Amino acid sequence: MSPIITLTTDFGLGDGYVAAMKGIILQICPGATLVDISHDIPPQDVLHGAFVLNTATGYFPPGSVHLAVVDPGVGTSRHPILLVTPHGSYVAPDNGLLTYILLKNSARPAEKATPETPFMEILEISVPEKCAAYVLNHSQFWREPVSDTFHGRDIFTPVAAHLAAGVPPDALGDRLDKLHCAFIPEPVQKGDGILGHIIYIDRFGNLVSNIPLGDPTAMRFTVEIEGRQIAGPSRSYASVSGLLAIKGSHGFLEIAYRNGNAAQHLGASVGTPFTVRGLVWQ
Amino acid sequence: MSPIITLTTDFGLGDGYVAAMKGIILQICPGATLVDISHDIPPQDVLHGAFVLNTATGYFPPGSVHLAVVDPGVGTSRHPILLVTPHGSYVAPDNGLLTYILLKNSARPAEKATPETPFMEILEISVPEKCAAYVLNHSQFWREPVSDTFHGRDIFTPVAAHLAAGVPPDALGDRLDKLHCAFIPEPVQKGDGILGHIIYIDRFGNLVSNIPLGDPTAMRFTVEIEGRQIAGPSRSYASVSGLLAIKGSHGFLEIAYRNGNAAQHLGASVGTPFTVRGLVWQ
Amino acid sequence: MSPIITLTTDFGLGDGYVAAMKGIILQICPGATLVDISHDIPPQDVLHGAFVLNTATGYFPPGSVHLAVVDPGVGTSRHPILLVTPHGSYVAPDNGLLTYILLKNSARPAEKATPETPFMEILEISVPEKCAAYVLNHSQFWREPVSDTFHGRDIFTPVAAHLAAGVPPDALGDRLDKLHCAFIPEPVQKGDGILGHIIYIDRFGNLVSNIPLGDPTAMRFTVEIEGRQIAGPSRSYASVSGLLAIKGSHGFLEIAYRNGNAAQHLGASVGTPFTVRGLVWQ
Repeated sequence: MSPIITLTTDFGLGDGYVAAMKGIILQICPGATLVDISHDIPPQDVLHGAFVLNTATGYFPPGSVHLAVVDPGVGTSRHPILLVTPHGSYVAPDNGLLTYILLKNSARPAEKATPETPFMEILEISVPEKCAAYVLNHSQFWREPVSDTFHGRDIFTPVAAHLAAGVPPDALGDRLDKLHCAFIPEPVQKGDGILGHIIYIDRFGNLVSNIPLGDPTAMRFTVEIEGRQIAGPSRSYASVSGLLAIKGSHGFLEIAYRNGNAAQHLGASVGTPFTVRGLVWQ
Repeated sequence: MSPIITLTTDFGLGDGYVAAMKGIILQICPGATLVDISHDIPPQDVLHGAFVLNTATGYFPPGSVHLAVVDPGVGTSRHPILLVTPHGSYVAPDNGLLTYILLKNSARPAEKATPETPFMEILEISVPEKCAAYVLNHSQFWREPVSDTFHGRDIFTPVAAHLAAGVPPDALGDRLDKLHCAFIPEPVQKGDGILGHIIYIDRFGNLVSNIPLGDPTAMRFTVEIEGRQIAGPSRSYASVSGLLAIKGSHGFLEIAYRNGNAAQHLGASVGTPFTVRGLVWQ
Repeated sequence: MSPIITLTTDFGLGDGYVAAMKGIILQICPGATLVDISHDIPPQDVLHGAFVLNTATGYFPPGSVHLAVVDPGVGTSRHPILLVTPHGSYVAPDNGLLTYILLKNSARPAEKATPETPFMEILEISVPEKCAAYVLNHSQFWREPVSDTFHGRDIFTPVAAHLAAGVPPDALGDRLDKLHCAFIPEPVQKGDGILGHIIYIDRFGNLVSNIPLGDPTAMRFTVEIEGRQIAGPSRSYASVSGLLAIKGSHGFLEIAYRNGNAAQHLGASVGTPFTVRGLVWQ
């Protein structure tokens, strides 16, 4: 079978940077199937990239290699890494871009947090048991000379291509015990409600929260956000007018606005807190 | 040969939704050739999507599967459908997204229209003779659980992938006699001119009309639109300055503005009427 | 091996034009690997397209076919051409879009320039010795009928697909001795400094110049641009705050702004001159 390599960057598609990476992949691993996850990650928005990467890569065959470069620290001391998980292998900078992949594999950044730790602070954590991590320090798999400003092309891409072509992970670099992961707070009980946060906003302006929902046919609740109250859950984007609270396709409570943009309507952004009250199982 | 699956959505490429669909396809139909038609359909603009889908898919091999999701009614009663035509198979919601594909296959929505039927009203029509339609109600080919908000991922995509992998159409759902199609009026004689409408505006601001043109070397005419008169046809976008009327690449009369945006210049939009006068065959 | 065809256009991905080209390729050359370089070239900006094309295509296997259409003169007398180089074959209009490919292969537009020749003027030059050029005038390899407005679909695309499928270059058209290339001035000594120009601005607002840099660890200098002085070189985008001068990933001196947009900050554009002073090798 043709090996699958996915690509996620904040490079956009206007400049030829992404295509350069694809050319290099096809030289090292001819016949690779290349799939773009997204190149429209907002520039240097590592945690937006982290969410998108997690949203998409879980649907790919487990042998896939996921190449991800949102790397404001390119040329500084942050490590280029490989993370091998049961569901796929990730080649990325160690800057929080793998946060949701690590959380899905039972990483525990919350154990490192204190009550004062800010939302999305980057913390050093242990590599989850089900995974193996490597620092990509074996330069024979890099492209020479390495540009100080484009490790995506000169380190991450050739390493991902060699991995897809069959080079074993431990040939690509030395094992790591620790990685970096953002602190995404868990929903917490607060008074008579549950305090949650908006962790992602999609292109439609839908607000994705950190509160997982079960079967939406078996519950009802009220969301309070930015001074507004929203009865939920709705069953579809078309079932009510105006603001609605719905179980989104990621499985989390989502705030949307029918035929409109909830983020703009509410003035909400990533990190906006909200409260769920009166949760009743029917 | 590798089966071809094209994708057309209004999801954009910033969120990972499209990539999730591609991952699912590659799990069900490994080796499929994936081709993006467009993911930049304006959100929920079904008829823009319908035009783009028709523009592009006619150039693909007839065995191709065309997966199209512009679906403001996701989670409501509109049917997910498969339409098999002599030129390709379409997996889409039954909401007008296949309008131009149906028209190309001799569907007759005009027979259902009255003089009062608004431009682009959605009408129920009979499935064209050359085609076969199916409601996608065989849930063994869906992804479970089905999200109320993302049938693109959970119904349309796995069904399209199974079809491309060789599952016969009648295994995917029950036959349908009726489908939904938008009413696009034909050009009509009105006084001494022909009344046409703008049906599509492309990224350059070129205005595509519903008036098909023959050999542009053998005719001349004058277009009246938004109070302006334009002598035509021009032979190229570079042959005159300012506004021009040209036989566009779709074969229809098109209004353009040299090195500029005709839609902005004229304040025209989809549905804008105009008149062609003095049509002379030379 | 599957033949590789790359695509570079200013068509955007909202309209289906690019997908039509891909459908035609897959009919003529089934199994081709299609790679998008960019379809977000600013409309009709031939020299932006020329830079992107050069940035990306050099990383592809030498047997690749590069299809490039930024073609404001479509339907006029400019030639459709094929340029065969040692590093890949290019199918494009002869309007300057291959400028940097020609320069890389030792074309000499500067020999045609006078002191009065404007920056980026299009000049007629001899085809470089290492290359072969053809005018694509053998219409049996076109798609009929040819639209006056979409040679991309009807001439360039089928010719590129036939080339990738094995048709030899001289079957596709007659040899050409002369091609068109933009005049990009070389950096020149002026007083105690070196006068350079900005030749490209990327999506991050980074200003790419025409001054190649060697090993950035072995030099220091000061850039004067738009009344500002910038000490350089920096080693990474993250190493200083504000404006910085760096050896960019293309190998040229680049002006950037940490976590910001240098082009907007300086009000600079393509063609903006600047001076490098005090260049010292350490």
